[in-house]
Amino acid sequence: MAQRIGKQTLLLISSPSIIGYAAVGAKQEKIGPLAGYFDYLSDDSSFGEKTWEKSEIFLQKKAIELALQKCGKKEEQMDYLFAGDLLNQCISSAYVARELQTPFFGLYGACSTMSESLCLAGMFVDSKLAEHCIAATSSHFCSAERQFRYPLEYGGQRPPTAQWTVTGSGACVVASSCKAPFLRAVTIGTVTDFGVTDIGNMGAAMAPAAAKTITQFFQDTATKPDDYDLILTGDLGFVGSRLFERLMQEDGYPLANIHNDCGLMIYDRSKQDVHAGGSGCGCAASVLCSFILPQIACQRLKNVLFMATGALMSPTSTQQGESIPGIAHLIHLSAFPYQEEVK
Amino acid sequence: MAQRIGKQTLLLISSPSIIGYAAVGAKQEKIGPLAGYFDYLSDDSSFGEKTWEKSEIFLQKKAIELALQKCGKKEEQMDYLFAGDLLNQCISSAYVARELQTPFFGLYGACSTMSESLCLAGMFVDSKLAEHCIAATSSHFCSAERQFRYPLEYGGQRPPTAQWTVTGSGACVVASSCKAPFLRAVTIGTVTDFGVTDIGNMGAAMAPAAAKTITQFFQDTATKPDDYDLILTGDLGFVGSRLFERLMQEDGYPLANIHNDCGLMIYDRSKQDVHAGGSGCGCAASVLCSFILPQIACQRLKNVLFMATGALMSPTSTQQGESIPGIAHLIHLSAFPYQEEVK
Repeated sequence: MAQRIGKQTLLLISSPSIIGYAAVGAKQEKIGPLAGYFDYLSDDSSFGEKTWEKSEIFLQKKAIELALQKCGKKEEQMDYLFAGDLLNQCISSAYVARELQTPFFGLYGACSTMSESLCLAGMFVDSKLAEHCIAATSSHFCSAERQFRYPLEYGGQRPPTAQWTVTGSGACVVASSCKAPFLRAVTIGTVTDFGVTDIGNMGAAMAPAAAKTITQFFQDTATKPDDYDLILTGDLGFVGSRLFERLMQEDGYPLANIHNDCGLMIYDRSKQDVHAGGSGCGCAASVLCSFILPQIACQRLKNVLFMATGALMSPTSTQQGESIPGIAHLIHLSAFPYQEEVK
Repeated sequence: MAQRIGKQTLLLISSPSIIGYAAVGAKQEKIGPLAGYFDYLSDDSSFGEKTWEKSEIFLQKKAIELALQKCGKKEEQMDYLFAGDLLNQCISSAYVARELQTPFFGLYGACSTMSESLCLAGMFVDSKLAEHCIAATSSHFCSAERQFRYPLEYGGQRPPTAQWTVTGSGACVVASSCKAPFLRAVTIGTVTDFGVTDIGNMGAAMAPAAAKTITQFFQDTATKPDDYDLILTGDLGFVGSRLFERLMQEDGYPLANIHNDCGLMIYDRSKQDVHAGGSGCGCAASVLCSFILPQIACQRLKNVLFMATGALMSPTSTQQGESIPGIAHLIHLSAFPYQEEVK
């Protein structure tokens, strides 16, 4: 049974586990530094499909299938699927759900979706609303470019602050179990807007939301950055990460060397032409499910604060001169369940 | 604490209440038969805003403000906001959430969003994940036409099966209380696709999902249509409603005269030029929050199955030749809490 602590944080007292997880990527991810940790990588970013949207459906479905396979569970055992993506009307997730036949909660949290879905899955299992939940999300470079910026054929030039949408997906199966990684606490974010209007600089638009959520978490739990091995943001990229660290310094929580960003980890910016780093729902999802969760499982990382961030604008709101609102949801992932720590 | 019954249904044993609710509409809703039950109606569908998207933000915010006001609660007391809408990247809900500062779960369930948000709010309160939640959604005729079909200026002709997107919003505040309406049970839907590809006939695309969810609910709870005063679908319209009733007849659950559809109630099809009836997230939401909930509160209606339905396609998936997947989530609303009935 979850227990509220402070203003905005819930302790998941039973500490549900991520019993299965998988990460899927394509060409750009395959030449990145985390390639060896992915469960499935393809040289063909179309995955043999006829449209980029269908390719994205393929990769999200693949991640879910592999996550189920890795924990020996069947889709019929799953009580709920929490999923969303970046495309208009979240079609990747809807068409994946059509094939799965699992009761489906469609989400929209932009690039914060991996956090949003994982928080809900953890809360549902902890409070016995469900026994098994899937949390998943995906993004595809080509479908996202068409959706948010220009069709690839146009060859639009990208500013140095722009990020590269990850062609990838991550999926987690959450259930009660005595094996790490455990979900220990969640802090659901509020929408924060510092007035950034440059859609070529999403990191800057999302950084204030990340700073706000994690500051609230530290206050609610009376902990500090040093209590964790890693503070992992979703896809702030180079520009957003620097801004996030500066905001945290100003808030009295200097992060020193324990902050890293999935957008900076998935690609090698010195060799790959990805400008300010990776982005997209699939960025945080695939880095979490490839590189991070196994390290928590084997206790190399003991306590991680995972916080995917989302920029909640649309091309229409941007054209109408609106600024970009951001959101960030936080999950405390641990090698130990809450109860064990308390003893 | 929720209790699973059958395959897909959860009984909300503590039976949370909808302690506050409000419905907002515009010009077309003001000349409809339910006008007298709305909390706020405007002759100006722009609500004084410069763009249709900003008008939709205004109306969703207004519904939430009125729902809070009617139960004497403040937004600071709300633990979570569950909201979504039809626009790309769900901007109406995101920009409303920016003003509210309530921890925000962004949803995408197309026109099923009122059910999806209300189910989550009920499950959260029942399992003590939250004390107070807001469930809300909205749609706007003009922003939806631009999004899904043609800009209004184009003057595209609509087929007789087409429905008219409601310019409206509904919001519910859910909490523990001893006053009706109570949330007694929920059945979360799976995605169902019968292969309909005509985006001018969404009712037909959604009807199979509604039939599937409610059949599952009857099986899970061992009840039948006669046990309820009203079975209320979201926005199947004229064509979809006939199809839904025929499917239910075939499934062995003839609905006789207890089925109605929000899309057929909100407008007078003999006087208003709305073709097959109303649609949009705001249709089910505003009919529920204007006409239905007060009747449950005063026990004129004792047991209602509310089921908003969503069509999960996008213009892109349609252009790519994909069929339209549908989803429907069911809520059992009652004048009595679960415990009282059991005694």
